[in-house]
Amino acid sequence: MTRPRFDFAIHHTDGRARTGAIAMRRGTIRTPAFMPVGTAATVKAMKPADVAASGADIILGNTYHLMLRPGAERVARLGGLHALMGWDRPILTDSGGYQVMSLADLTKRSEEGVSFKSHLDGSRHLLSPERSIEVQRLLGSDIVMAFDELVPTTSTPEVQAAAMERSMRWAVRSRAAFDAGGTHAEGAALFGIQQGALDEGLRRSSADALMDIGFDGYAIGGLAVGEGQAAMFACLDFAPGQLPVDRPRYLMGVGKPTDIVGAVERGVDMFDCVLPTRSGRTGQAFTRNGPLNIRNARHAEDTGPLDPACACPICATWSRAYLHHLVRAGEILGAMLMTEHNIWFYEALMADLRAAIERGGLTTFADRFRTEYEGEKA
Amino acid sequence: MTRPRFDFAIHHTDGRARTGAIAMRRGTIRTPAFMPVGTAATVKAMKPADVAASGADIILGNTYHLMLRPGAERVARLGGLHALMGWDRPILTDSGGYQVMSLADLTKRSEEGVSFKSHLDGSRHLLSPERSIEVQRLLGSDIVMAFDELVPTTSTPEVQAAAMERSMRWAVRSRAAFDAGGTHAEGAALFGIQQGALDEGLRRSSADALMDIGFDGYAIGGLAVGEGQAAMFACLDFAPGQLPVDRPRYLMGVGKPTDIVGAVERGVDMFDCVLPTRSGRTGQAFTRNGPLNIRNARHAEDTGPLDPACACPICATWSRAYLHHLVRAGEILGAMLMTEHNIWFYEALMADLRAAIERGGLTTFADRFRTEYEGEKA
Repeated sequence: MTRPRFDFAIHHTDGRARTGAIAMRRGTIRTPAFMPVGTAATVKAMKPADVAASGADIILGNTYHLMLRPGAERVARLGGLHALMGWDRPILTDSGGYQVMSLADLTKRSEEGVSFKSHLDGSRHLLSPERSIEVQRLLGSDIVMAFDELVPTTSTPEVQAAAMERSMRWAVRSRAAFDAGGTHAEGAALFGIQQGALDEGLRRSSADALMDIGFDGYAIGGLAVGEGQAAMFACLDFAPGQLPVDRPRYLMGVGKPTDIVGAVERGVDMFDCVLPTRSGRTGQAFTRNGPLNIRNARHAEDTGPLDPACACPICATWSRAYLHHLVRAGEILGAMLMTEHNIWFYEALMADLRAAIERGGLTTFADRFRTEYEGEKA
Repeated sequence: MTRPRFDFAIHHTDGRARTGAIAMRRGTIRTPAFMPVGTAATVKAMKPADVAASGADIILGNTYHLMLRPGAERVARLGGLHALMGWDRPILTDSGGYQVMSLADLTKRSEEGVSFKSHLDGSRHLLSPERSIEVQRLLGSDIVMAFDELVPTTSTPEVQAAAMERSMRWAVRSRAAFDAGGTHAEGAALFGIQQGALDEGLRRSSADALMDIGFDGYAIGGLAVGEGQAAMFACLDFAPGQLPVDRPRYLMGVGKPTDIVGAVERGVDMFDCVLPTRSGRTGQAFTRNGPLNIRNARHAEDTGPLDPACACPICATWSRAYLHHLVRAGEILGAMLMTEHNIWFYEALMADLRAAIERGGLTTFADRFRTEYEGEKA
């Protein structure tokens, strides 16, 4: 059986929320989906088999990091990102647009793209729509993101509008580069990215421009950059509805568990965030009763699991007391176990959200989740 | 079926080398055995199930580290070291004698024991034969080591002799504390430690004193502390033969692969060393063709495994190129995969040594191993 390149089917809806599945050559992505972040060709501190066991159907790779180290051409010579890291399910790669502005040195923007110096070795590079698409093709990405321009949320409306408009011109170039590069025939899909900050009119113009070009899926960019949950939700009250109903909607870089619940209620299908992995390395665990800091002395002799409601292999085997010890002692195993638990927490949340939508009970689930999650903080 | 407390059976001999099995309540230890070091209640960067999968029948825990963090009484309240770390096979604990001299601050020795300040928080502690045995009992150790006194190898013969004699008095007290504490009834065994530096007469006196006391097994202490392989082997030409033939002989803190091969040829049954785990965290991999530094640029595009002769899950899945990338990028997964390979390498070497002894071909195996291992260095 030949698997489709990209086939999104909506299975159930509940209010604006929906469940579905994206069938691709390397596997099927159940939506709403959370994508663990595998920045440098690794979901930090986890083996790929453990990432898959958590329920993750897809992971994210970072174009900016990978083009600098080990290098896109090198990854291609080594057989692509999947072969290199031993992950055979789909991978979405970002365009590098966000990281180049937040991590690179001496960035210089023009209509052509963004030139910059590597934060690793000072070497000069250019990221443009054409180069970003080429890099993502070299990596062997399954879902390629259009290259866009980001400006601080504190920018003036004029600057925001100009950045959105340039991003739409770059979306045209990203589409053309993707189509010219033969990536489509290799089984990859291309997503456009809606910009326009928190402004409904700019978001509408951006969505219309993207739909004129035509993409396999549509991302909502430029959120979760410090505007706060209320402002983000206000934007998500209109942004997903501006995008095609029959295409996946991907909210980039989001987020906290309650961010995800609220975004799913507003019609978002895909998420990625470093929070579960990064928190795992700093001693924060996610639980149904909110986040807890395992370094806290109250866990030192607690023989219970991180989260009694959790079905992950970590909670089945090890106590808070052991994790407290490992994290306090700076042991690598502490980062490993905390990360794995957190990824399971996120993937279990997505499974619960999908199940709630399928039985038409999302509001009940979401309200109870928020009450439990926000009722007790560690 | 009730498993024995401690039953050592020799299965085959080949020259001075022998294979055998130590049957204990928590499992059987195939000898010659290599014990991965789990200093702080974790074999660093490995899950216990992966340690077991490598073929390790027993691991080592460090009394000094564990008494300071998380604390022996705390470990006991949490159900012991096995329950805490999720390892159900035997654990050998050292006595703390070596670490207290190499790691602690402001150590003060007397006939009573060694008082010191914790290198972690400056708190004052005493390690004596009685306290060491008590700590090991609180940890739930399966093989408890007598508390001994170590002096630098550069010490005068008089200092060496005095330290050996004190260690023998402490061996008497260790035996008495072990017997009084009820540890025996809980299924634990007690090993004495031969001292006497490189001196055959001192080693003989020490062995005789230990045999007068009587132990389940006998360790050879005070080697692998900088004397070099030739001097160590010269000592191992007589030391194992001074110990009871029907008891396991444990060479503490050894060593490099060729150290282990030579010591097995000289009649040693048990080993522990941080080398495979520590090297894994610094980018050194063990292979049949010698150690290699994965950071070396020549591995950057090598799609082959770390060691083509290796059956470990790392070599089955990931390339040198990927490990090179991970280690260069400082990724935790690099430390995880390199460590796991190295532990597999050590355990596979022990399995090969046992097989060679069983077929009467140890000399052939050992000579070929040395030729291959020392022929090519990375």
